Amino acid sequence: MEPTFGWVTSENMALLTDMYELTMADSYLRHGMNQRATFDLFVRHLPRNRAFFLNVGLEQALHYLLNMRFSEDAIAYLRSQKVFSEEFLTYLRDFRFHGTVWAMPEGTVFFPNEPVLRVTAPRIEAQIVETFLLNTINASVMYASKATRVVIAAQGRGVADFSPRRDHGTDAAMKVARASYIAGCVATSNVLAGHAYGIPITGTMAHSYIMSFPTELDAFRAFASDYPNNAVLLIDTYDTLKGARHAAIVAREMQQRGHKLRGVRLDSGDLVRLSREVRRILDEEGFPDVLIFLSGDLNEYRIRDLLAAGAVADAFGVGTQMGTSADAPYINGVYKIVEDESGLKVKLSTGKATLPGRKQVYRFYNGQGVMERDLIALEEEPPPKGAEPLLLEVIRDGELVYDLPDIKTIRAQAAEQIRCLPERLRAIEVSPEATYPVGVSPRLAALRDEIVARAREVEEQT
Amino acid sequence: MEPTFGWVTSENMALLTDMYELTMADSYLRHGMNQRATFDLFVRHLPRNRAFFLNVGLEQALHYLLNMRFSEDAIAYLRSQKVFSEEFLTYLRDFRFHGTVWAMPEGTVFFPNEPVLRVTAPRIEAQIVETFLLNTINASVMYASKATRVVIAAQGRGVADFSPRRDHGTDAAMKVARASYIAGCVATSNVLAGHAYGIPITGTMAHSYIMSFPTELDAFRAFASDYPNNAVLLIDTYDTLKGARHAAIVAREMQQRGHKLRGVRLDSGDLVRLSREVRRILDEEGFPDVLIFLSGDLNEYRIRDLLAAGAVADAFGVGTQMGTSADAPYINGVYKIVEDESGLKVKLSTGKATLPGRKQVYRFYNGQGVMERDLIALEEEPPPKGAEPLLLEVIRDGELVYDLPDIKTIRAQAAEQIRCLPERLRAIEVSPEATYPVGVSPRLAALRDEIVARAREVEEQT
Repeated sequence: MEPTFGWVTSENMALLTDMYELTMADSYLRHGMNQRATFDLFVRHLPRNRAFFLNVGLEQALHYLLNMRFSEDAIAYLRSQKVFSEEFLTYLRDFRFHGTVWAMPEGTVFFPNEPVLRVTAPRIEAQIVETFLLNTINASVMYASKATRVVIAAQGRGVADFSPRRDHGTDAAMKVARASYIAGCVATSNVLAGHAYGIPITGTMAHSYIMSFPTELDAFRAFASDYPNNAVLLIDTYDTLKGARHAAIVAREMQQRGHKLRGVRLDSGDLVRLSREVRRILDEEGFPDVLIFLSGDLNEYRIRDLLAAGAVADAFGVGTQMGTSADAPYINGVYKIVEDESGLKVKLSTGKATLPGRKQVYRFYNGQGVMERDLIALEEEPPPKGAEPLLLEVIRDGELVYDLPDIKTIRAQAAEQIRCLPERLRAIEVSPEATYPVGVSPRLAALRDEIVARAREVEEQT
Repeated sequence: MEPTFGWVTSENMALLTDMYELTMADSYLRHGMNQRATFDLFVRHLPRNRAFFLNVGLEQALHYLLNMRFSEDAIAYLRSQKVFSEEFLTYLRDFRFHGTVWAMPEGTVFFPNEPVLRVTAPRIEAQIVETFLLNTINASVMYASKATRVVIAAQGRGVADFSPRRDHGTDAAMKVARASYIAGCVATSNVLAGHAYGIPITGTMAHSYIMSFPTELDAFRAFASDYPNNAVLLIDTYDTLKGARHAAIVAREMQQRGHKLRGVRLDSGDLVRLSREVRRILDEEGFPDVLIFLSGDLNEYRIRDLLAAGAVADAFGVGTQMGTSADAPYINGVYKIVEDESGLKVKLSTGKATLPGRKQVYRFYNGQGVMERDLIALEEEPPPKGAEPLLLEVIRDGELVYDLPDIKTIRAQAAEQIRCLPERLRAIEVSPEATYPVGVSPRLAALRDEIVARAREVEEQT
């Protein structure tokens, strides 16, 4: 059964590509068109309800670029399609990526039309990697950008990722955990992600646990005896307020044994009213330190409304809506050619025009350290004074030239960037005024206009 | 870098679980609560814009249940959390699934509240597998249910999955390809999915290919010479109608060499008007057999509208919106305990009531073979006459007892089921009247009411 199970791993990831990348590549090889070309990866638009993107996914993208190979098995499969030339299949046998890549570090805030990753490589190499790079970065950026909003809405309270059961498959569950932790979540329920990425893991009991004991109090007592220092009791299986009183009974019994109940969790009902009542009950019973965790169909809007209405919460568990970016379940990241050996390139289609050439993105801050504007310029232009360049060289001629930061460093970088966002971009309700100025240098703009005009002229003549 | 890259494989999949499954399991072990229990996997509601579900994901679920193991590495990680008992870690070392599973075959249409998979196993085994089963089946069912709608909208024309760049990570790209093929798509652009699952793969060229040649005509000629029998030319990079004339020139040149242009693809613009014009141009030039492929932000609504407005299309390439199930990016599949050694179980919460006990789902057809109604009954009840039982035994005491059908058989089964859907459920616009009757047997209903009453009584007394 294994062969049809469909795991994607480092061994077979090179085949996770759109068929047309390979048919184009074969054609380029036959026509001697393997000179260097440059492609930009950028997002065209902000989706509804988003005012910025948070960059995540670079580490996985680099792993792919450095390690992708076509196995004999992969080549045999391609041969069986009776589409590809033997010359191309031979070429793939020794394929590896020799290009140069510039990218924004993970944890960087960015905006539409800004290249977040730029590949310069022999055309075939640059082309074949398109699908995987987009798959990795589109998903990770989407998750991180959504999670950032949830973290902002929680106003300093902890947010834990509870999404694995609703994420789009196993890799999504891993990417959501990593991206949401970088975005400021404090933990994930996903044990494998905890192991793979060093993210704190969290979770205690489900309703089925409570239902497996004769009474709720029996269940609480059993769990408290098993986890004397970190039990969080789920109190809404039957009646939330009665559950809170049962939790207080158990908290007292724990206290008498020198233990401490960590918290209670509410997963349903009118969370504003119930959380306040539960807090009152716990306080009256002498347990002001027992934490209140809220969960159940939460997202940034719901959390904002709960807190505005006076809900009492120390932390939130957020699942489905964060893990699927439910209100904006895709971002339209694209990968476009901007230069080749014949010169600069632009795509002409109305509304889809691209910026030609190898570019850098600069960020300007105001005196208070708040992000003021970005500027996209040609790489060869002198860097503007006082601006921070966002693209770093990460791979040079196929070799990693970038010290991959650990996940805590990336998370700190993201927190710093989010702190520097203009207040209007941090609003949960995204208003049409919540825009951020991204300029194009005069030289780049002139060049683009010139190339568009020239390309149209050439096209007219054919 | 590999350790933090986060591939999920057969070796580490056991850890892809919510932390609370493991804390509950440890508690069950300590309290001697490892008697057999039964859990149902079912979906609570139809999402907006869906009138039915198509079951996909069972093969992966079975692979998981049969092969999940906790490696020494996994156990060492769990120990490092300082949460679990040594007894439990020792138990995990020899863990394997010994339960019995009944499930609907892949390619079966199903409805809310119907158990699509049922696990009876020692409580700890049944509990630990929850997260992975939900992750796998929620995602696959969501994709298959969405793709079925796209296939219905295309009215017999081919639909190809073009989604890998926007799917939620690598596993999602594999699941979308497999689920959409089962749902009736004819091909995928995902080469690895083609290899892993034996799905036809498709794809030819991108705009960047056209832009890599001095002129569009140069690009068409190059590609035609490379792929003399299966070239599909992308004609909308500059001017679609001019592109169609260039394609006709190349088609004639191919004809003179004894070759044949397969088709043209339009990816932007007013597809109704342009596709009709392109068809006219190709017909006038003597190429009525050259196919027209449409793509570009398509979904079932768009395809329905295009065809209703007279667009000419032989096939569609559908990406982002199908691959992310964009209008309903999650389904709320749940996994609930329905029986344990103390008897039948129901969840009490209003609106979340469950049906107790081990159950079977029966389907009734009318004289024309159209699905008429389903009935959920206790397994022990005599099967109603003339009804088809939908749940089959697939694993017995930890051993596979089900002949896994190949993907073509599953796809044929799905096609047959979709053919038997009542017409009202096939409408792209889902109306409130488009419901399907799912009944509960009188005995099961009485049992549920009795257990609810008894459970409330017990709860009152505590």
